[in-house]
Amino acid sequence: MKMWDGRFAKPSDRLMEEFNNSLPIDQRLAHEDIAGSIAWANALARIGVLSGDERDAIVTGLEKIRQRLAEGTIHFQPNDEDIHMAVERLLTEEIGTPAAKLHTGRSRNDQVATDFRLFVKNALTDLSGHVINLQRVLLARAESDAEIIVPGYTHLQQAQPVSLAHYWLSFFFLLGRELRRCENAIRTADLMPLGSGAVAGCGFQVDRQALATELGFAAVSDNSMDGVGARDFVLEALAAIASLGITLSRYAEDLIIWSSREFQFVELDDAWSTGSSMMPQKKNPDSLELIRGKSGRFLGNYTRFATTLKGVGLTYYKDLQEDKEPLLDSVHQMQMVLQVFSAVVQTLTVNCSSIEQRLDPFLLATDLADYLVRKNVPFRAAHKVIGRIVAYCIEKKVALNKMSVKDLQSFDAAFGEDVLAVFDWKTALAGRDVPGGTGPTSVARQIETARAQLAANR
Amino acid sequence: MKMWDGRFAKPSDRLMEEFNNSLPIDQRLAHEDIAGSIAWANALARIGVLSGDERDAIVTGLEKIRQRLAEGTIHFQPNDEDIHMAVERLLTEEIGTPAAKLHTGRSRNDQVATDFRLFVKNALTDLSGHVINLQRVLLARAESDAEIIVPGYTHLQQAQPVSLAHYWLSFFFLLGRELRRCENAIRTADLMPLGSGAVAGCGFQVDRQALATELGFAAVSDNSMDGVGARDFVLEALAAIASLGITLSRYAEDLIIWSSREFQFVELDDAWSTGSSMMPQKKNPDSLELIRGKSGRFLGNYTRFATTLKGVGLTYYKDLQEDKEPLLDSVHQMQMVLQVFSAVVQTLTVNCSSIEQRLDPFLLATDLADYLVRKNVPFRAAHKVIGRIVAYCIEKKVALNKMSVKDLQSFDAAFGEDVLAVFDWKTALAGRDVPGGTGPTSVARQIETARAQLAANR
Amino acid sequence: MKMWDGRFAKPSDRLMEEFNNSLPIDQRLAHEDIAGSIAWANALARIGVLSGDERDAIVTGLEKIRQRLAEGTIHFQPNDEDIHMAVERLLTEEIGTPAAKLHTGRSRNDQVATDFRLFVKNALTDLSGHVINLQRVLLARAESDAEIIVPGYTHLQQAQPVSLAHYWLSFFFLLGRELRRCENAIRTADLMPLGSGAVAGCGFQVDRQALATELGFAAVSDNSMDGVGARDFVLEALAAIASLGITLSRYAEDLIIWSSREFQFVELDDAWSTGSSMMPQKKNPDSLELIRGKSGRFLGNYTRFATTLKGVGLTYYKDLQEDKEPLLDSVHQMQMVLQVFSAVVQTLTVNCSSIEQRLDPFLLATDLADYLVRKNVPFRAAHKVIGRIVAYCIEKKVALNKMSVKDLQSFDAAFGEDVLAVFDWKTALAGRDVPGGTGPTSVARQIETARAQLAANR
Amino acid sequence: MKMWDGRFAKPSDRLMEEFNNSLPIDQRLAHEDIAGSIAWANALARIGVLSGDERDAIVTGLEKIRQRLAEGTIHFQPNDEDIHMAVERLLTEEIGTPAAKLHTGRSRNDQVATDFRLFVKNALTDLSGHVINLQRVLLARAESDAEIIVPGYTHLQQAQPVSLAHYWLSFFFLLGRELRRCENAIRTADLMPLGSGAVAGCGFQVDRQALATELGFAAVSDNSMDGVGARDFVLEALAAIASLGITLSRYAEDLIIWSSREFQFVELDDAWSTGSSMMPQKKNPDSLELIRGKSGRFLGNYTRFATTLKGVGLTYYKDLQEDKEPLLDSVHQMQMVLQVFSAVVQTLTVNCSSIEQRLDPFLLATDLADYLVRKNVPFRAAHKVIGRIVAYCIEKKVALNKMSVKDLQSFDAAFGEDVLAVFDWKTALAGRDVPGGTGPTSVARQIETARAQLAANR
Repeated sequence: MKMWDGRFAKPSDRLMEEFNNSLPIDQRLAHEDIAGSIAWANALARIGVLSGDERDAIVTGLEKIRQRLAEGTIHFQPNDEDIHMAVERLLTEEIGTPAAKLHTGRSRNDQVATDFRLFVKNALTDLSGHVINLQRVLLARAESDAEIIVPGYTHLQQAQPVSLAHYWLSFFFLLGRELRRCENAIRTADLMPLGSGAVAGCGFQVDRQALATELGFAAVSDNSMDGVGARDFVLEALAAIASLGITLSRYAEDLIIWSSREFQFVELDDAWSTGSSMMPQKKNPDSLELIRGKSGRFLGNYTRFATTLKGVGLTYYKDLQEDKEPLLDSVHQMQMVLQVFSAVVQTLTVNCSSIEQRLDPFLLATDLADYLVRKNVPFRAAHKVIGRIVAYCIEKKVALNKMSVKDLQSFDAAFGEDVLAVFDWKTALAGRDVPGGTGPTSVARQIETARAQLAANR
Repeated sequence: MKMWDGRFAKPSDRLMEEFNNSLPIDQRLAHEDIAGSIAWANALARIGVLSGDERDAIVTGLEKIRQRLAEGTIHFQPNDEDIHMAVERLLTEEIGTPAAKLHTGRSRNDQVATDFRLFVKNALTDLSGHVINLQRVLLARAESDAEIIVPGYTHLQQAQPVSLAHYWLSFFFLLGRELRRCENAIRTADLMPLGSGAVAGCGFQVDRQALATELGFAAVSDNSMDGVGARDFVLEALAAIASLGITLSRYAEDLIIWSSREFQFVELDDAWSTGSSMMPQKKNPDSLELIRGKSGRFLGNYTRFATTLKGVGLTYYKDLQEDKEPLLDSVHQMQMVLQVFSAVVQTLTVNCSSIEQRLDPFLLATDLADYLVRKNVPFRAAHKVIGRIVAYCIEKKVALNKMSVKDLQSFDAAFGEDVLAVFDWKTALAGRDVPGGTGPTSVARQIETARAQLAANR
Repeated sequence: MKMWDGRFAKPSDRLMEEFNNSLPIDQRLAHEDIAGSIAWANALARIGVLSGDERDAIVTGLEKIRQRLAEGTIHFQPNDEDIHMAVERLLTEEIGTPAAKLHTGRSRNDQVATDFRLFVKNALTDLSGHVINLQRVLLARAESDAEIIVPGYTHLQQAQPVSLAHYWLSFFFLLGRELRRCENAIRTADLMPLGSGAVAGCGFQVDRQALATELGFAAVSDNSMDGVGARDFVLEALAAIASLGITLSRYAEDLIIWSSREFQFVELDDAWSTGSSMMPQKKNPDSLELIRGKSGRFLGNYTRFATTLKGVGLTYYKDLQEDKEPLLDSVHQMQMVLQVFSAVVQTLTVNCSSIEQRLDPFLLATDLADYLVRKNVPFRAAHKVIGRIVAYCIEKKVALNKMSVKDLQSFDAAFGEDVLAVFDWKTALAGRDVPGGTGPTSVARQIETARAQLAANR
Repeated sequence: MKMWDGRFAKPSDRLMEEFNNSLPIDQRLAHEDIAGSIAWANALARIGVLSGDERDAIVTGLEKIRQRLAEGTIHFQPNDEDIHMAVERLLTEEIGTPAAKLHTGRSRNDQVATDFRLFVKNALTDLSGHVINLQRVLLARAESDAEIIVPGYTHLQQAQPVSLAHYWLSFFFLLGRELRRCENAIRTADLMPLGSGAVAGCGFQVDRQALATELGFAAVSDNSMDGVGARDFVLEALAAIASLGITLSRYAEDLIIWSSREFQFVELDDAWSTGSSMMPQKKNPDSLELIRGKSGRFLGNYTRFATTLKGVGLTYYKDLQEDKEPLLDSVHQMQMVLQVFSAVVQTLTVNCSSIEQRLDPFLLATDLADYLVRKNVPFRAAHKVIGRIVAYCIEKKVALNKMSVKDLQSFDAAFGEDVLAVFDWKTALAGRDVPGGTGPTSVARQIETARAQLAANR
């Protein structure tokens, strides 16, 4: 028997029960559901719909169910349609009649929207903590890797030398914006629909503001149709996680490439690598590959629910039941992804000698052009001159920093003896102390900024 | 201890084990994995890498594991990385030393590609059966609803009268193309990678053709890098299911609208509807809403894996491990969706009187224009004339079929007494017996075609 | 000749030029590019890299180009690779040598990121204005439609009566959250990368803060690799527009259904409808259908660029060039969509008599249950009683509000004479004056809130 | 004035005209539209709806329009709603009255579906040609690069040595399946809806089979509602292109990595590379990066239209107008992508010496294990032994192939003098002559197969 089947002549088909049943998913909202129901019992009692005794019985019963859930002694049943009906059934078994009064003035429509908003708030707050932890790890690396010079790449071609700290900090600051998106999504979710009823608003004058306070919501929804029908908060949470996933996939890609024998810039710790069933020599950066690969999952979960929501009229349709699974999956997977990425970065070894061997003197070509600019050659002309020198070096197989001053002068008379000072990695970095640059002062400043941001987020 | 950790100094981190572990998902390929391993043992025996006794021990051991799986007496362990390693561990426990020889010449790379292709073939064949069953239901409805005239809609505005059978048949024929896409995806999957090794091809001269025959594959892959690295067959299967999902969402939408009180064309059986926790009068077409909503899921699963696959170089990367979950989910959900849709269509009640009341005489406006065309009025002019008559009817609140011949003649002298014959639903249908039209002969022909297609698919 | 081809032995292939050329798209950033270049010239002059005369020549030249663009007298050339190179070429033609100095210390990498961030800020600010305008139209409708009672739907089944104003307000408040997402995306874009150079930071000590002030940016980027490589701001903008598109598709769906002859709640103005080439009677809500349909486009543009960005390592890769087209398209299309939706809502006619005819007394079933609750029947029991009454009414074809008190009492003795007062639409609404409810006081309060929000956004 | 505005009291709003106007896009179907109209005129003439003279006038008029289009002397007008109405207007201007008869029995619904199916067939046939051309280039490379040994990678870690020809052939065979998906999509599109009218079938007994023959369709649609409402053929075409795009992105990724200084396996021709505006030394593989990046675009176009189509009821809704732009874009972009990829592969230089330097002896670890297997060591044990040897080599910084027989024997007594033969790249390859393997005989066989497939496709 269903709670709602008064007008029905026939029970649901068995397959329909399985198809319609959201319990395997929404039981993960049990905690939020019970919290919402306790608050609701209090609200009904406050306006006399429940007597004090009834309220107490309900609250005690719900707390007992919460405890049994924690103990794992609850068994759901096949026709427990969803977590709301399951909790109501359990409560009825626990306390009898008063349970039949709990759903007064409430609908599963406002109930589930409330439960889910509570869940999203908590889940994204938890994820934010993991993002901050990754930032902490990156900052620590930046602090310890400040002296290591690596090629900065564009198009995977060596471009200009940068400090390795500078690279880790780029990741740190991008994560700061990801964090802000999580916070925005939390703010969007932080709106209580409870009291909206099925669609038209609760038929009893409950104190919604008091409900919101008890449940920790910042505000109550302004309109009941919006309260039960809107799912923009789910989309925003999914988009925040998808964006984070894309960002992580980019840095994972770099580190996978850097782990190749050909680059050999970093080596992952054995604890975060795996081997091959066939090839005994293999050590693979599986952790990073999974992080990269799961970005598709996060994006897919977003696309999935966005498509589900598209064109679904107001207010509640059963289509909306498909909102939870993608979000729960994205949250759970992102929790792991962030922890794994933190551990990988924390434990990886930087192979300084290998990096050094791979620094190509052409990395200094721009500095050479800038040298000419300082000798009053217009930049565009300087660029051409250096381009020709590069072509010459390639053809003659001469390293750029092995060109003599005379060689260089044959390309442009503006070269002087002082040009040789350009061929030094540290000089190159020191010349980029503009705010945001890879120079040592700039990097130190970035580390200060990063520390301050972490402190503010604590 | 992992099977591959000879060169590793440290075990995997616990979180890494959880993150990397594909067993919760790929244990659903256990059957395929065992079948593949039996075939592999036979192949190794055929070239003398295994003795006859070793082969027999392995085959017997694997069959025992298969049986224990069916009985549910297998317990996987946390460090059973994946189904392949789990089966190898179980086999080792079962038969000892010979188990250590099974993986000769094989890699998990070719093994998993083989398992998964077997799975995809079976799963899509199963889904095809469900599609055919839905076609069968639609044909039965077409046969019984041939006399019912409904408004044909464009833009959800009444356009022209059609037979309800014609509507069901449109669904039948579209499903025929969905079926062909499933078959194409099966054909793509029907290619055996086993014998590709990790990437370069098996180092032992196994008879791959015999392997393919034993496992029921139509052909062996031409190239080992393609064999282990390609996942186009997964994408194609996901795309076939996504397309089917979109198609079903469109017909679900129609039937949801037709179930509204305002349309009241059909009523779902109680067994496929649900009620409201708050509103006692509600009977909701949840089954159809879920079908519509899950189209987002199918599309999301496609987008998810397509994004994962994007930009992942050859050959195998751990990113590819993310291929199974979306496919398994799409297959499982689509199995339910198809069965539910079949049951819904089969059991719904058509409300003929309500349909009749809603047939708007304006549905015959095109027939009226065609009448003028037959009186030699150019169609574009006829269209304008009828447009003006329609505007007049709306303004004067006169039904189109209540216009007298004289009234009509005031708009165009070409109208004759015979115009009144236009105002008949059956006449309108009978005039559309062109192949594919909604006329009775055409519909009968379509039913014949549909029967023949079903017979051919049996 | 390209500006960068010093080291190249061969020119680009013709097809490569076409393939690589972003000018057809990024010429729409011409205004931002010129503004950025003027600011850059000023910055270079401030540190003596340009003389005052050179700076003046450059600024004057750029202003002339800006003017010629406005006049449409600029002709781009096939090998004007992108807007940056095109502007540099035009400037060279205009002023000669000093033009060759403009690109000193700057790369297209920081230049394009700056241009595009400026564009995104402006475009989303413009879109926000259109959202606010739609809110204004909805508020006006709410004010004028407050007395109209319509069925509130869940699952497209009549659920409870609501005021039409309440429906429009649900749209208003949801748009408020869409607006906030646009503002968040603007904030993310409001970060100046200029001065980041190609990847490592500008080699000259430009005053980045002054640059930001001149260009109207709130802050300068903290890290040059992040500055040139990040595209999270594009994703966030695309996600904000996609979310808005999904929201609009839901309300468009409702209004399309309400425009059907079977519902006939609203009729679109002729100016926002179209006809059929064949069927003279047709009047179709094409405007709303396009709005609904284009939601796919906005989502597609998001998915498109998210997939492009996935797995692309740091910092700049040519893949990122694909960022502009989806954003420009989403912005342009959303501008139209919002304006059209505003006009459609503003000009549609509400068909009150048709709505009234379709109000089903079952809409009051919850009120009847609540009546029993007030007579101390537990809600769950009351729900069952009313369910059975509904079943009875359907079977006997009696309207719920035509049941006599005696009839009702045969189902539950708690019914008294006062039950008849329940059968009144206005009473039903009045009972839902809880905050957010559809009661008249609540709706008046919502209108106040809405007015205040609009005033705050002005 | 619109052709359909007889019943309208007001013209369209100017913004509505712009919003609704599909001409900027669908004018690219002009050729197909004219062909369809000529066939339609012939069909109408065949059943006497048009006289021979009328038919001739129409056909001549349409041919003139076609010619003027080719000459570029046609000017469309702002209120030419779409290509169908534009052609009808032009025809009216050209020949007067008979033009008004052309639209008899036809609707834009069946007309546009016919035009678009014709377009899809042609476009995919053209794309298939470009795929075949890329296959041709790959085969040529395989033929010339057969002697070059490169590391085969899994997880971007060196796995086993393979012939470079083998790599190119993996690409060849995967493209063969992409080709089949294009052909399947062509088959799906190859179904003529003309004669379906607006929704119910044409009201005149046109000979649809003759129409199909004239237009080159393989069959006529079975059902008119399916004929005008289905867009599965668009989805299938978009999915075929998206899949191809993903495949190309994977090989582009490899080649981008191989173009890095650290790998230096290949160098792109100058004609297919670009430089930097700032860094004179840079030569970037932009062509490949764009190919990789555009995979997002192809996937986005699919997601876009799938989402648009989702939940849109039968039959024609204006939402469907959004079908053309994504398809036209995917087709146009893929044409370029395929041609560019062909040229890049054809013109790139393989850097043999650099590849040779990077071949790591660990690539032979599996061969070493297989050696032990042949000495009757169970594979799993052999894998462990070699794993330990590898760990030893890493720790002691000894190359695997520099281990003496005695060294090896200290790990396993089964090693004999003959083990040294394992340390030879050619031997390793020769041992993988199993079908599909990288051995020389297998590669030669693959080349034969590839040639035969190309010959069959000619």
